[in-house]
Amino acid sequence: MATAPSSSANLGPGFDALAVALSCHVTVMVGPSGKLIVRSLGEGSGFALDRTHLAAQVVQSVLGHDRFEVVVESSIPVARGLGSSAALAVAAAAAAGADDPLAVGTAVDGHPENAAASVVGGLVSAAVVHGRPVAARHPLDPALRFVVVVPERTLSTERARAALPPSLDLAAATFNLGRMGLLLAGLADSSLLSAAAFEDRLHQPYRSSLFPEAEAIMDALRQGGAVGACWSGAGPSLLAVCGVDQAPQVQHVAEEALAACSVPGAAVLLDADHRGLVVRSFADRPDTVYGAVERQDRRQARQTS
Amino acid sequence: MATAPSSSANLGPGFDALAVALSCHVTVMVGPSGKLIVRSLGEGSGFALDRTHLAAQVVQSVLGHDRFEVVVESSIPVARGLGSSAALAVAAAAAAGADDPLAVGTAVDGHPENAAASVVGGLVSAAVVHGRPVAARHPLDPALRFVVVVPERTLSTERARAALPPSLDLAAATFNLGRMGLLLAGLADSSLLSAAAFEDRLHQPYRSSLFPEAEAIMDALRQGGAVGACWSGAGPSLLAVCGVDQAPQVQHVAEEALAACSVPGAAVLLDADHRGLVVRSFADRPDTVYGAVERQDRRQARQTS
Repeated sequence: MATAPSSSANLGPGFDALAVALSCHVTVMVGPSGKLIVRSLGEGSGFALDRTHLAAQVVQSVLGHDRFEVVVESSIPVARGLGSSAALAVAAAAAAGADDPLAVGTAVDGHPENAAASVVGGLVSAAVVHGRPVAARHPLDPALRFVVVVPERTLSTERARAALPPSLDLAAATFNLGRMGLLLAGLADSSLLSAAAFEDRLHQPYRSSLFPEAEAIMDALRQGGAVGACWSGAGPSLLAVCGVDQAPQVQHVAEEALAACSVPGAAVLLDADHRGLVVRSFADRPDTVYGAVERQDRRQARQTS
Repeated sequence: MATAPSSSANLGPGFDALAVALSCHVTVMVGPSGKLIVRSLGEGSGFALDRTHLAAQVVQSVLGHDRFEVVVESSIPVARGLGSSAALAVAAAAAAGADDPLAVGTAVDGHPENAAASVVGGLVSAAVVHGRPVAARHPLDPALRFVVVVPERTLSTERARAALPPSLDLAAATFNLGRMGLLLAGLADSSLLSAAAFEDRLHQPYRSSLFPEAEAIMDALRQGGAVGACWSGAGPSLLAVCGVDQAPQVQHVAEEALAACSVPGAAVLLDADHRGLVVRSFADRPDTVYGAVERQDRRQARQTS
């Protein structure tokens, strides 16, 4: 049995490179069975419960056969830019005993940052190096919380990708590199964080026609107390990054902004998830926590030594 | 009187966005004079000592007149990719009493990262936000040292810029964003640093024809013990990032590699400069140190609390 957190990718400038793991989760259980059985509870339960289900595909690819039962229980909205498929793939792969759940999750998405956040937890950057996904954790100020604005409309990643131009100015790339540096510094120490650190020239401007209300909602989030706002992954969810004290007010403002734009939906207040992928043992052994808690402690020890 | 460190920009993926301040410096003294006098000692002393000298231009723009003497003493090689003009502009502006030396240094280069490192010190990212340069410091593992390979040839920034393509693939931009994330994580904790974190698709491949021996020298640096290697700024200097224990060996290998390629030059072993711009007081007041030592201490305190 394995549990993985949702994630919000890109965070503005960090297109296909940055993500933060968030505190809503998917759990996958795998057990032996005479024939394939797929069960699904919660979010995503509307998909066909057969071998076309992503969890069944992942488990079958790991086990090499289809004589299993897989049960998925999820609180991650599907196709809303919260990395639901990466989280599901990572949890299903781990529940089936895969050696490298990050590679499985990356293969599903074609890019590694959502899967990396679901495995490692916290704030991560990720890249594919020599064909293998590599993830690195970055410091994340515990004084920050996250409001995810989830419209009741889906936006396929394919459509969001198709909106992107095939080529771009070098200046747009350097714009994002500079903003990503400011963003990582600000997420590590929120006293340095500014709305400008979330600015992007690689994807959001091209996707705005797919969700025309997004800009007005993000403006409202910032005016309502969020430090910054951006698209969550390929959308249509939006992410507001807030101080702990401002977060409830930002959640309230987000719901008002949705109503003002006549966009049905909800605003969810989430925390960062620092544990990442957790594989539960049935015996009396401890759970395997992929989140780099130990590594983070070590880094803190070095910085202060 | 003000002293600013040299800097190495880009660091591979962080094109126009990242730089590290290094321990060779330029000092500028400004005093009243009946007419303009420019003196120059050390590196860069071959320039015309008149109002066309960058230090004279900067001081005149700050003071609004030309009745001053300016003395420049520098150990930063000129036009080698070590940010000599940004460091000189920053130091000259500060010595003349400018309010915002970072803005002056950014205006000289047209991009902010060298000037940001010369002002703030350490490892910085920088961007121009609403017309003003903004810099942020990032953690830098004290276990790292820097070997700068300085060929005895110059490469104008204009020529290095002209080699870049006007447009590029979105995939090249996301490649660099992902690598920059891995790089910042690895420079904060060198146990996570890898050669792949220095890979770049935005500038180095296009500039290699301007310094055809660069790739072989960087290979030698990595094989000789450097964790990673890259161009230093717009070149032609190259930068090797090394563990403290490996640095002397890497310096030795660098000199051998220059000789093997028949490129005259030197390899210099440098440390990061964490003080940044220092403005010395003539009275008994303390010096003004722009380097964010206090800020870094505060962040460390927060991370461990």
